[in-house]
Amino acid sequence: MVVEKKYEPIDFVLFGTLGDLARRKLLPSLYQLDKANLLHAGTTITGVARQTLSNTKFVKTVRENIVKFLGEEICEDTWKRFAKRLDFAMINMVNHEDYKKLCEHVDSQRLMVCYFATPPSLFGDICKGMDAAGIIDETVRVVLEKPIGHDFKSSEVINDQVAEFFKERQIYRIDHYLGKETVLNLIALRFANSIFATNWDHNCIDHVQISVSESVGIEGRWGYFDSAGQMRDMVQNHLLQILSLIAMEPPTTLDADSIRDEKLKVLKALRTIDASNVAQKTVRGQYGLGFVAGKEVPGYLEEPDAIETSKTETFVAIKAEIDNWRWSGVPFYLRTGKRLPAKVSEIVIYFKRQPHNLFSDSFASLPANKLVIRLQPEEGVEVTVMNKVPGLTSSGSMDLQKSKLDLSFSEEFGDRRIADAYEKLLLEVMIGNQALFVRRDEVEQAWKWVDSIMTAWNKTNEPPEPYQAGTWGPVSSIALLAREERNWYESKIKRKK
Amino acid sequence: MVVEKKYEPIDFVLFGTLGDLARRKLLPSLYQLDKANLLHAGTTITGVARQTLSNTKFVKTVRENIVKFLGEEICEDTWKRFAKRLDFAMINMVNHEDYKKLCEHVDSQRLMVCYFATPPSLFGDICKGMDAAGIIDETVRVVLEKPIGHDFKSSEVINDQVAEFFKERQIYRIDHYLGKETVLNLIALRFANSIFATNWDHNCIDHVQISVSESVGIEGRWGYFDSAGQMRDMVQNHLLQILSLIAMEPPTTLDADSIRDEKLKVLKALRTIDASNVAQKTVRGQYGLGFVAGKEVPGYLEEPDAIETSKTETFVAIKAEIDNWRWSGVPFYLRTGKRLPAKVSEIVIYFKRQPHNLFSDSFASLPANKLVIRLQPEEGVEVTVMNKVPGLTSSGSMDLQKSKLDLSFSEEFGDRRIADAYEKLLLEVMIGNQALFVRRDEVEQAWKWVDSIMTAWNKTNEPPEPYQAGTWGPVSSIALLAREERNWYESKIKRKK
Repeated sequence: MVVEKKYEPIDFVLFGTLGDLARRKLLPSLYQLDKANLLHAGTTITGVARQTLSNTKFVKTVRENIVKFLGEEICEDTWKRFAKRLDFAMINMVNHEDYKKLCEHVDSQRLMVCYFATPPSLFGDICKGMDAAGIIDETVRVVLEKPIGHDFKSSEVINDQVAEFFKERQIYRIDHYLGKETVLNLIALRFANSIFATNWDHNCIDHVQISVSESVGIEGRWGYFDSAGQMRDMVQNHLLQILSLIAMEPPTTLDADSIRDEKLKVLKALRTIDASNVAQKTVRGQYGLGFVAGKEVPGYLEEPDAIETSKTETFVAIKAEIDNWRWSGVPFYLRTGKRLPAKVSEIVIYFKRQPHNLFSDSFASLPANKLVIRLQPEEGVEVTVMNKVPGLTSSGSMDLQKSKLDLSFSEEFGDRRIADAYEKLLLEVMIGNQALFVRRDEVEQAWKWVDSIMTAWNKTNEPPEPYQAGTWGPVSSIALLAREERNWYESKIKRKK
Repeated sequence: MVVEKKYEPIDFVLFGTLGDLARRKLLPSLYQLDKANLLHAGTTITGVARQTLSNTKFVKTVRENIVKFLGEEICEDTWKRFAKRLDFAMINMVNHEDYKKLCEHVDSQRLMVCYFATPPSLFGDICKGMDAAGIIDETVRVVLEKPIGHDFKSSEVINDQVAEFFKERQIYRIDHYLGKETVLNLIALRFANSIFATNWDHNCIDHVQISVSESVGIEGRWGYFDSAGQMRDMVQNHLLQILSLIAMEPPTTLDADSIRDEKLKVLKALRTIDASNVAQKTVRGQYGLGFVAGKEVPGYLEEPDAIETSKTETFVAIKAEIDNWRWSGVPFYLRTGKRLPAKVSEIVIYFKRQPHNLFSDSFASLPANKLVIRLQPEEGVEVTVMNKVPGLTSSGSMDLQKSKLDLSFSEEFGDRRIADAYEKLLLEVMIGNQALFVRRDEVEQAWKWVDSIMTAWNKTNEPPEPYQAGTWGPVSSIALLAREERNWYESKIKRKK
């Protein structure tokens, strides 16, 4: 029987508790949930790693990481409560016998949430070990971190390994972009406001841009990154997830499968890009020597551990098209890359221009309305509108100006902390709501689309186009839009304080 | 030849310069235009009245009124310039010989603007006097203050008197609501933003409300008001002008006649209200004893000079319908009255509800988007949208809240003074743009529609429904909307500082 009650005590088991993700994000997020009184008093947290570590030392490490990665003083009241939940289990994750130790930490009568914050190559072993320990039943929920494979085939293998022990409704595949406040607000804005809903199609929208730029380079992970590349690392998951949320038909309800059925339909409607059209529809780039924020940085092939002949892309731009009734003729331009001028994640919906310009005195060409959904650096949603320049002007009746309206938060909520995406997603796992997690068929469909592009790229045997670190990628990326008389949205970069 | 150049010196002649409108609005507005450097250095202002008054005394009076009615200190630099423009001409306006004196004040080589700030019964005499003085030519512009008659027939008489001497393109009929910043912004928002333009019809709009409420009563003008009533005083001009601006088809250009042609079409498409449907479509009220802002105030029939048998309405509510393609099935509810709880002028566009509610956890019935255009007390335009409550909530994925977005001014313009409607309109007269002035056929069409209602009311011989001063009018006004499952928009009243 699936447990549906929202507030039960949970045994939370974190595999890979000493890894980067757990230290930076998961444990601080659990602490924040505790601080917000969103953890049941009886909930326990067991960290699993193969290292030898005393419980005391583990608790101390967790505290240090919370302070370090939240960048704020710890709340002692919360900490007292939180520390009591913590427990450490030393398990060699490939040794299935070891998992018996978990029985001391979890209670089969209680709901268990297992977070696999490990490389996916271990997912199968973890499942087998848990099975060997006899702690799997239908109430267990497992959370899978990306990457789920590096192509369709390998994702099938990983998903099969987990599926041997867990039903799809027990599996929560994380894409942390789906936990971001502004992505959720996008759903609210779109479906709760007729003024947006009635504009949400090819009649009213000219095109959509989704940009995820990073200013960092490889950060010591050259080998890892080189075997993946920007397409697998970012497009297959984050960018396609966002695309499918924007483009999906209104679901019947907000239930997990209603939403995921609609997202899947979008992924299936993506026009295939293959050798026949890959040159027109995609741009891949690789950064060279350049300057980021005034500092010289090395090119991709000059990074530590680099193999000089690598053809791995660090930049991707794609003109994606959705062949369905709603989106016919509306391109979705995707762009993501490393060593770009700023760390910005933005979705920009460009509405169509007014069919006739009544204000040619002010604007020879009337700017289109835009809905800008910014995930980073500061989450926010705004719409650009044209309104009258207030006051009197000598030039005649009506001077116009562009204004930006903040749609995200009303004033009274301005100071409220924006929760990290992982807090939101951890809470959803504990509640048992899969709506913000990726279903297996979505993962597979996204891989199929990406695989086709990768295959086409590999066929050409050409290297990616070079771009100077600190620029917005190869000029072909600009040209991709420019030849259709469009431009990438110019993000405002704020001066660092 | 019509003079079209924007910046020429103008001889401005203000008939009725000692009257209420001139003292409170026109002269202070001219001063403000001068302060904003929007008057040509050579422009002169001649005040006309029948009283004996020296020039010096006139200038002194003007200064006193500017200080009094602007409620701020005078700018001495501006005043020095402004005072030099001022001149007084003593003219008995019914004595046509007297107008010769004007020849000393105006220069036939220059553009002349004559503002008739007098009762309309004098308009004919003024025209004849000016003619006798030989100062009328095709470059003269005349500005007519309301009321242009008290019904269709009397408006024809007045318009004919003026038309004998001036062409329609020389005549500027003032409706000061058309000079209000937010009314102009409404035009900008609607026609410069596809996100609004595509929503502007019966598919997307449920209904429209136009409310103009006053908290004052008759203020010593009982006799004058009683011969008019709220319908003639407010509905025939202000409310129908606003209605036609909201409802008009997009004009080809913003030229005066493009706009006025479209407004006229709306007025012509208004469904006739007559004896057959007046009881269903209209409510008229008359205030009785009550309380406004905590103070007891007398009823309409107890005011000084009141005739106790008066059936004049001090409140009107109307369900207006526009029989055309765009607005079929979309009621425009009009409401105006005296001795209501607050002085508020608001236009509220109610968009249709979302066809399907995905957020029934948050809202059993999802509120509709509203566009609120407030003309008084503080001009502003805002749209209510639903967005996500920021942060984590224990109840599940998505809690919604209503937010209001200020559409009127971007932050950087927040402190800019909002010009009085008369400043804007005076400027437009001087520029020679008739777009914000009412054309004769509009006046007549509005009277025809109003006349039909008045005739139907008079037929019944019933008195208006009573309402207590300080309430929102007779309960029938609430019922007018309630029986269609709608409600009057609840204006927020601010506490006085």
